[in-house]
Amino acid sequence: MLENDTVAILGLGLIGGSLARDLSQRGARVLGYDTDPAAIVEARKARAIRAAIGEDFEALRTATIVVLAVPVDVAPALLERASHFLDAAELVTDVGSTKLRIGAEASRVGVRTRFVGSHPMVGDHRAGFGVSRMGLFSGARVYLCPSPQSEPAAKTKALEMWHAVGADVRWTTPERHDGEVAFTSHMPHLVAAAIARTIEHAGHDATALGPGGRSMTRLAESSPAMWRAIVATNHEAIARALDACIVELETVRDIVGRCDQDAVVRLFTEAGAWSEPPETPSPATKRAASRAARGTDPAAAK
Amino acid sequence: MLENDTVAILGLGLIGGSLARDLSQRGARVLGYDTDPAAIVEARKARAIRAAIGEDFEALRTATIVVLAVPVDVAPALLERASHFLDAAELVTDVGSTKLRIGAEASRVGVRTRFVGSHPMVGDHRAGFGVSRMGLFSGARVYLCPSPQSEPAAKTKALEMWHAVGADVRWTTPERHDGEVAFTSHMPHLVAAAIARTIEHAGHDATALGPGGRSMTRLAESSPAMWRAIVATNHEAIARALDACIVELETVRDIVGRCDQDAVVRLFTEAGAWSEPPETPSPATKRAASRAARGTDPAAAK
Repeated sequence: MLENDTVAILGLGLIGGSLARDLSQRGARVLGYDTDPAAIVEARKARAIRAAIGEDFEALRTATIVVLAVPVDVAPALLERASHFLDAAELVTDVGSTKLRIGAEASRVGVRTRFVGSHPMVGDHRAGFGVSRMGLFSGARVYLCPSPQSEPAAKTKALEMWHAVGADVRWTTPERHDGEVAFTSHMPHLVAAAIARTIEHAGHDATALGPGGRSMTRLAESSPAMWRAIVATNHEAIARALDACIVELETVRDIVGRCDQDAVVRLFTEAGAWSEPPETPSPATKRAASRAARGTDPAAAK
Repeated sequence: MLENDTVAILGLGLIGGSLARDLSQRGARVLGYDTDPAAIVEARKARAIRAAIGEDFEALRTATIVVLAVPVDVAPALLERASHFLDAAELVTDVGSTKLRIGAEASRVGVRTRFVGSHPMVGDHRAGFGVSRMGLFSGARVYLCPSPQSEPAAKTKALEMWHAVGADVRWTTPERHDGEVAFTSHMPHLVAAAIARTIEHAGHDATALGPGGRSMTRLAESSPAMWRAIVATNHEAIARALDACIVELETVRDIVGRCDQDAVVRLFTEAGAWSEPPETPSPATKRAASRAARGTDPAAAK
């Protein structure tokens, strides 16, 4: 049904660029905005966008869906600027790693009924349109965080867009979202940086890492600006997650210090059992099953 | 030159199995031992080994190279058992993650002149012959840890074998090796388990992880028995590395707690600069260059 939509994507990085590619391929009319002219040129060449949105934002007036795809500390100001051009918008959303701050801004600038925050769990340590690709969201979890004021039409539109690109959609609240990703994403990224610093300060360089050490430090290469923004908008929850991790790490240190071999076996047995994904059906089957179970299928909502 | 060698590989898991595949392909006569009969059957089918070594170990008497490829807490007893059948052995080595313990055992059972410990940095969270593969060691770092008593012939043989499978060989001492890998490998693996426990205890399951969280917890699926063994043989150095990591993590926690955005940018900028590999020549070029620089080319030693 996206054939009748005009989607304005503000920010053509890894996530915005990948979304533009997928939605264009599915027949939506995609408009793009980026402060980097090279990203616009590349996105047009890749047929990810039909046209560019100029600095006057006038082209935004035709968009039925508006997606903010910029770092979470830049998104609020961009939303305010866009808020004057949302004549046709049925859905305004974003793709940031934190949801409370942008949700508050949506209320402040008077678009809360049309705003539903999104968070696709797809980032990696690289950034920019150059690493964007078709199919990035296929099977990926995407959290949708409406406010109590979000209209059903906006929620249905959000579901429609993310299902169109193959995502595994989960509804939650901004509060629960920010608390959960502090543990599942933000804390692990910061620990990667801490491990990197630890190894460097012990006098070893990164070429000494095997595959295991490498996988535990690679996220230290993530965008400093993006992580400044995430910390700025979720520091309390992240600090709690780091505290909890330090407590677990002290337990592990104690086990190792005592050379408690049984406890080491228990540690890896239990942590491994949690980590190892059970046998999974294909993402499409899973999505259909979970939609049916949770009644989130837009068809079922009619 | 390995065409004239008979290599006995004791333990046909990820590392032993991969080494067997590579050395067979390069013309060595490879014999295999494993307590699991299925591994022997698979290894013969894959033409990774020419013949099996029976429980009486008699077949070991023909081996010019003997490789222990079992967990580090099993290796010492296996070395003692093998020590009575080393009639033809010019090199006895292992592939474990810790080097002090096995080196001490080599001295104790009277093979220290022919023993040179090896540690290929190639493990991952999976185990068994089923995940072994040709080319596993290509470009991989392999530490060689001779003792002061190791004979030149044994050292040359070790170099020859690892170069034959494409490894990037580095000489070090058992002491330095165990201290370094405590930081570059052992500590990060234990932190992965601690992160997994933290997220589980906060009530989230592993399906909630994005790619970042996943890469920071996957190592929790590593073999509990292998990690019991590594901790048992290197606990003091690992405890020091965990202490250092907790200190760094407390610094990060403090930065986040204060919402010090400049410090977050510095953290990811500095950790990322360390982690990001500089532009690298191909492994083959690198190996040739480093061999030349360090004079470790067996040809140059003549």
